[in-house]
Amino acid sequence: MGDKSIMKPFEKLVPRLDAMKIINENIHPIARTENLPINEAAGRVLSEKIVADFNVPPFDRSAMDGYAVIAEDTNIANEATSVKLNRVGILYAGEKSGTILQKGQCIEISTGSPIPKGANAVVMVEYTKSHQDIIEIFRKVKSGENIAPEGEDIKKGEIILKKGDFLTPGKLGSLAALGKTHVKVFVKPKVGVYSTGSEIIEPGTIAKLGQIFDINSYTLSAIIEENGCLPIKKGIIRDEESVLTKAVLESKEFDLVVFSGGSSVGSRDLLGNIVETHGQVYFHGLQVKPGKPTLFGKINNKPLFGMPGYPTSCLSNSYVFLIPALRKLSHLPPVKEKTVSAKLSDSIKSDGGREQFFTVTIVDGKAVPVFKQSGDITSMANADGFFIIPIGITSLNAGTEVNIILFYS
Amino acid sequence: MGDKSIMKPFEKLVPRLDAMKIINENIHPIARTENLPINEAAGRVLSEKIVADFNVPPFDRSAMDGYAVIAEDTNIANEATSVKLNRVGILYAGEKSGTILQKGQCIEISTGSPIPKGANAVVMVEYTKSHQDIIEIFRKVKSGENIAPEGEDIKKGEIILKKGDFLTPGKLGSLAALGKTHVKVFVKPKVGVYSTGSEIIEPGTIAKLGQIFDINSYTLSAIIEENGCLPIKKGIIRDEESVLTKAVLESKEFDLVVFSGGSSVGSRDLLGNIVETHGQVYFHGLQVKPGKPTLFGKINNKPLFGMPGYPTSCLSNSYVFLIPALRKLSHLPPVKEKTVSAKLSDSIKSDGGREQFFTVTIVDGKAVPVFKQSGDITSMANADGFFIIPIGITSLNAGTEVNIILFYS
Repeated sequence: MGDKSIMKPFEKLVPRLDAMKIINENIHPIARTENLPINEAAGRVLSEKIVADFNVPPFDRSAMDGYAVIAEDTNIANEATSVKLNRVGILYAGEKSGTILQKGQCIEISTGSPIPKGANAVVMVEYTKSHQDIIEIFRKVKSGENIAPEGEDIKKGEIILKKGDFLTPGKLGSLAALGKTHVKVFVKPKVGVYSTGSEIIEPGTIAKLGQIFDINSYTLSAIIEENGCLPIKKGIIRDEESVLTKAVLESKEFDLVVFSGGSSVGSRDLLGNIVETHGQVYFHGLQVKPGKPTLFGKINNKPLFGMPGYPTSCLSNSYVFLIPALRKLSHLPPVKEKTVSAKLSDSIKSDGGREQFFTVTIVDGKAVPVFKQSGDITSMANADGFFIIPIGITSLNAGTEVNIILFYS
Repeated sequence: MGDKSIMKPFEKLVPRLDAMKIINENIHPIARTENLPINEAAGRVLSEKIVADFNVPPFDRSAMDGYAVIAEDTNIANEATSVKLNRVGILYAGEKSGTILQKGQCIEISTGSPIPKGANAVVMVEYTKSHQDIIEIFRKVKSGENIAPEGEDIKKGEIILKKGDFLTPGKLGSLAALGKTHVKVFVKPKVGVYSTGSEIIEPGTIAKLGQIFDINSYTLSAIIEENGCLPIKKGIIRDEESVLTKAVLESKEFDLVVFSGGSSVGSRDLLGNIVETHGQVYFHGLQVKPGKPTLFGKINNKPLFGMPGYPTSCLSNSYVFLIPALRKLSHLPPVKEKTVSAKLSDSIKSDGGREQFFTVTIVDGKAVPVFKQSGDITSMANADGFFIIPIGITSLNAGTEVNIILFYS
């Protein structure tokens, strides 16, 4: 029996928007880059600009299947009156013609084939009829018609992609069009994940009374991976000063480190004091529910989160505070929140003293509360999203219209 | 010079919605499953239901840091009048107490610790003051207050996750809470990707006149990967009957196979005829622009797409037709389209005969056209999304409000 209480309440709770601002100011996008084959670069962020070193298409090519002609030869053609031209060749895709087209002649041409010398337009096959090598043309074409001129899509010297561009399938296609096999992208930031707490054990082991399975390492790692970073699961460590100090100081291996647990009243001074001693604490204690016992600081000049031990608190604060940090760190664009409006199926209460993140599932267009307690993982597992109950509101009636931020959209 | 034309126009164009219906009816979600560690299962789809085989929490635990008490002892406590209790122990997280609490006693307790025998409530530390082992209590608690009872979150026997559930971080957390180390999920369907065309060469090689780099293998593989499937890049094959027939028949290795190119007028009969001979063609030719020369069929009882060779056509049809197929195949929920409304920055034209997918980028809240030609990859690379111009509309004025389907949200 100790003679000193292990507990001390929080001193000052930081509002959500202030906390987000502090985090944003202290997270800096990663500078390290790597060279990747383009077929491994989907979803990554470009760290160099891409300049076209040739025109695309690289030659005047046919935009249609049909006949390359001299446009002037088709002047009198229409649906009723055909012009007859002499087919002097067939160009399959990928082939070029040695022939120089003369008046009265045409060359059958596939989409994408280089326009033969002498030709200045293509008549679509739909407006022709063939009789062996005599081709009837039923439509007039203008000079340049159905030709994709060299450089129409991309001009040599043009900046095609910029540093910081997110590599969508379309942008990867541009890289391929330019003949690129590799690109420089920002590396995925390494994020260390620790679960702290003497009561926490690995799933798959046998729990004794008082022990519970580690949840946060798994939810945090999934969140980290989904947001452009590389989770490095460091497992469960005891809430003891020497162990925690060692872990905190190891953070120099990582670009960011996330602890969960150990920031509640009982043990939070431990992590807080260690970070204070070896680095800086920017805030400790948030004016939100769930998720009050959250810490953000810096150690070895690397950002550090101390997330609540409670699974729901840890996960909801991950959506609100950690994801923006991960995405800034990895150069990903901010999440575009998808929101939907729905009426509450039931009346609910809030304590009014803190902003509450209230999880709901959407059933038949109604917002059905799933929030139970901060300690309950099912609050998050079964939720489609959450809405924010402002400070000062202590109850909401069934039927109240709420604006739900969806977890997945 | 051949004496037989290689070309034949399309016979009947299928409207978009009919095509989507045909695809949907002929894609069946994959049945094969695999067993994965839960830290590799994020974003996968469960192929088994998960039943809780114990209660969570597995014991009555403290929901707060504070003092476990007998509620009746606190009846007269309030802000002005304290009750003094004798602290007979400290319970750190993960520890259990052997003590049976007696009247007039309390035990200091951390969040998550098992409630000691005899206690029936917890007073939050915020409402107490400690003087060595004498604890002053300044708030009355009711029986059960600040206790998370055994099974509060999950009850033994309860179905926690269902077959077909998409594994979000929260759902992975539920699995961990139940002590699961592995789960059964559906395998990622294998999707074969072929680029066909004698003019197509690999990026990184030297292009001769008439040759262009393969784009579609890269864009298609990225699309396939983003939508729950495993792309298997089979590379570039020539548009020749024997080569194409061999490739088409190889499709039995895959759960779905995608060809691009070879379905335009010049060569499309080749793929069409092969699929017709060895399987079924469900449609060939769509009433959409870009993307008319698209084929969908079945070979070896596996679905087969013949996508247009033009990069923009191939990619826009992937968004509209292929992604829904990939997601159904892999059990992923359909994409929830994110749309925004914006005014056109410029007047545009459409041919009116087909629905047109018109790509735009959103600049200062305006929809700025980026569509150039079907052959242009930058139409897609630079686009934020597209809107659909209905059949019969041949022009839209600047300022027209359009509803844009975003590629990424």
